[in-house]
Amino acid sequence: MNKIFYKCDIVVFGGHGDLSFRKLIPALYHLVKDAHIDLNSRIIIASRTKMSNSDNTKLIKEKLKTFLNKDEEFEDEVFAKFESLIKYCHIDFAENKTFKNLENLLTKNQNEERIFYFSTASEFYENICKSLSDYKLISTTSRVVLEKPIGKNLETSKVINEKVLEYFKEDQIYRIDHYLGKDTVQNLIALRFSNKMFVPLWDANNIDHIQITLSESVGVESRWEFYNQYGAMRDMVQNHLMQLVCLLAMEPPHSLDPNAIRDEKLKVLNSLRSIEEKDMKNHAIRAQYTAGIVDGKEVKGYLDDGNSQSDTETFVALKLFIDNFRWSDTPFYIRTGKRMPSKNSEIVIQFKSIPYSIFDNYTMPNKLIISFSPDESITLNLMHKIPGLDEKMKLQEVSLELNPPRSFVRKNEAYERLLLDVIRANPTLFMRLDEVNAAWKWTDKIISAWQNNITPMQTYKAGTNGPASAISMLAKDERVWHEN
Amino acid sequence: MNKIFYKCDIVVFGGHGDLSFRKLIPALYHLVKDAHIDLNSRIIIASRTKMSNSDNTKLIKEKLKTFLNKDEEFEDEVFAKFESLIKYCHIDFAENKTFKNLENLLTKNQNEERIFYFSTASEFYENICKSLSDYKLISTTSRVVLEKPIGKNLETSKVINEKVLEYFKEDQIYRIDHYLGKDTVQNLIALRFSNKMFVPLWDANNIDHIQITLSESVGVESRWEFYNQYGAMRDMVQNHLMQLVCLLAMEPPHSLDPNAIRDEKLKVLNSLRSIEEKDMKNHAIRAQYTAGIVDGKEVKGYLDDGNSQSDTETFVALKLFIDNFRWSDTPFYIRTGKRMPSKNSEIVIQFKSIPYSIFDNYTMPNKLIISFSPDESITLNLMHKIPGLDEKMKLQEVSLELNPPRSFVRKNEAYERLLLDVIRANPTLFMRLDEVNAAWKWTDKIISAWQNNITPMQTYKAGTNGPASAISMLAKDERVWHEN
Repeated sequence: MNKIFYKCDIVVFGGHGDLSFRKLIPALYHLVKDAHIDLNSRIIIASRTKMSNSDNTKLIKEKLKTFLNKDEEFEDEVFAKFESLIKYCHIDFAENKTFKNLENLLTKNQNEERIFYFSTASEFYENICKSLSDYKLISTTSRVVLEKPIGKNLETSKVINEKVLEYFKEDQIYRIDHYLGKDTVQNLIALRFSNKMFVPLWDANNIDHIQITLSESVGVESRWEFYNQYGAMRDMVQNHLMQLVCLLAMEPPHSLDPNAIRDEKLKVLNSLRSIEEKDMKNHAIRAQYTAGIVDGKEVKGYLDDGNSQSDTETFVALKLFIDNFRWSDTPFYIRTGKRMPSKNSEIVIQFKSIPYSIFDNYTMPNKLIISFSPDESITLNLMHKIPGLDEKMKLQEVSLELNPPRSFVRKNEAYERLLLDVIRANPTLFMRLDEVNAAWKWTDKIISAWQNNITPMQTYKAGTNGPASAISMLAKDERVWHEN
Repeated sequence: MNKIFYKCDIVVFGGHGDLSFRKLIPALYHLVKDAHIDLNSRIIIASRTKMSNSDNTKLIKEKLKTFLNKDEEFEDEVFAKFESLIKYCHIDFAENKTFKNLENLLTKNQNEERIFYFSTASEFYENICKSLSDYKLISTTSRVVLEKPIGKNLETSKVINEKVLEYFKEDQIYRIDHYLGKDTVQNLIALRFSNKMFVPLWDANNIDHIQITLSESVGVESRWEFYNQYGAMRDMVQNHLMQLVCLLAMEPPHSLDPNAIRDEKLKVLNSLRSIEEKDMKNHAIRAQYTAGIVDGKEVKGYLDDGNSQSDTETFVALKLFIDNFRWSDTPFYIRTGKRMPSKNSEIVIQFKSIPYSIFDNYTMPNKLIISFSPDESITLNLMHKIPGLDEKMKLQEVSLELNPPRSFVRKNEAYERLLLDVIRANPTLFMRLDEVNAAWKWTDKIISAWQNNITPMQTYKAGTNGPASAISMLAKDERVWHEN
């Protein structure tokens, strides 16, 4: 691609937080390395600690060395460029007057475009906005990036978003869902709308059901206090899983314009069939992991991890329907959980069975399997003759697998893509407020039913694929989860 | 598979011919090796030379060593079993009384089931049949295998078949087309009718066109005299290519019963649009190779190979249409030739373009490529996002390729399959008379137009993909041949 050197000032609030060290700083380092950012840009690390610029640089260098990909060497030459962009700014988000420090920094040799990255708890958003406004640091070319979770439900999300909207217009607000930054997720749009083959296949007539699994083998551990406020539904379903459902199910957008795509996603969210209370027990499974074995190691249960009682779910499995022309009565089964056997992000499109078989043996339905973790792959399962001399043709399932072209380069991290999109002011891969609200509206109903204990909390042993009820959810429909 | 030991007497007329040594004897050796033939069966090699049993066995051993696959060892233990089945029989096909030798052999310790394999020129078929009948060697459980070419056109084919039908009933006659014995060709039936994915795709609405290429790098050389009587149309198109068209185009048969499949193939042949005289020049290309370079070696032209003038084509390219509901106006482009760059047997199903593109760059139409020589493979070409940070999504073509399951065993030769089918009396993979006649009827019209010089004979340099007119045949339709 042609390199364009974007010039801007980026302020990372919560710049010493976990997300910043693990994802944002490595992503910015890569954007500098790959010459996407003009070296007159500035990266301002704003945090509560009092710290000198040089101590901050030292800390960042150390964290970068820890959090760069294992197969990537830290490059002194790149870091020399990178550190020349970095300034430290001491700010207490709750204390308006500390923003004076930011004003001093920003208004000196300022760049026209300013990006405020809110890598903090959403309770601080209002304060930060107000202080930025008080110091007149927000202009029409400023943009703000909001990290999830934005609130805990539709009501709190609305409140927080309304506050931010007092200071920024909707098109200045970039609500990040890092799944949308993944190449394989964007590739869903390419696959669906640049391949004629899928056009007649992609509907209720030909697809039996769709499965999405986002499983992790890690537990909650040190994040227990934080995680326990949210759970798998708010942490994974309301954002990542809903977004994947949207990309898989949406109608063809009329163009790749940000709003063309987001309009189509919104239509999907608005078409989600609300789960009735009577179905809640069978269509919305929640569970917590108990002690078990993951990767050969004994691990504690969720309640032991937190040393406390809790009704927060670490696993969710849902059966959902999209009530529209294309998907009528085609189930989407989605699940996500901690402490499952492996890290695995996978979409399975299972086609219907052939209408009539002339073969003696059972034919497996075709499956298109799109994996994006641990490895990116596309697999198409087909039936094929078993070679040999059998008089009656015998069949077996075979796989067509993606043969990656050699031009594939270093895999970009999702945050690189998304930060670059913020820098170049392209909101396509960010969530519009109406999308966020529509997703909350649908998930809130389930969360509220759970709070009323309509679906009992299940348990599953760490290292297993979730509770038995998640398996029987499909078994009742004569289907099974695709396991690797 | 469960091994069934079939017991029968097999008489190979022309047992010392090229086909017998190269294909039939190795195939029978393998059927013995793999325990498909009962060791009380007999293999009678009938030929014109006077020769002792032991000399015949010696000759066969020597030929086997030459013609077994390069990666296969000759096994003395297997040969010991194999040779115990072999008898030699001196017969002059034109001399009725020499069949007495066969009578003596066959009627001693006879097996109930008898197979007569006519690996001779078709001019001898009548004589052989009559002699067999005179010596009362044909029973209701006897079967006869006819090698192509059976005649040179509909008229001569009818005459020869009628003669054979005086002695054998249609269901006793096995007209061999060794392409149907290939696993990959039979797999076309499995692929088409056991995969739901292909059901809505397999028609004129979704397929832009189909290509079939059967190319060889060899020339005619020592077979010149024989080949020159037939040419590519009779040698390759009327049988192999027509059969492939049938399998690709046919409607789903109601079962795998021999006649269910052959009925559907016949319907395709009867639906072939007759090429009008005005289209002949553009839709039916014929050509001869001239001197050139193949595999880095200089080779002679066809006329020099034969040291003679000739209007026999060594290359054919046809554009054909199947006038029915499924295929209306979908072209099938087929080509075959000698002295092309490589041995290549390949089917390309090219799907239509997407109805509308939201992407900036050109999208290649999807292609399903089924190769059966030199290697067996299935490839599906799809468009895919180019990984990376480009703001506007860029696409590239990628391939999903068959990942062969490990259970794949030694590849059986087509003749093994077909001989075993004759032995077990299953005619599915053999051509019924009405199919043969329908194919002749369609090709005769082209051959006759050529004889009237309506399509001029083109030339192509040995080692190239045929004459320019074959390329422009597709170019006029804004299409190209798929080349590897």
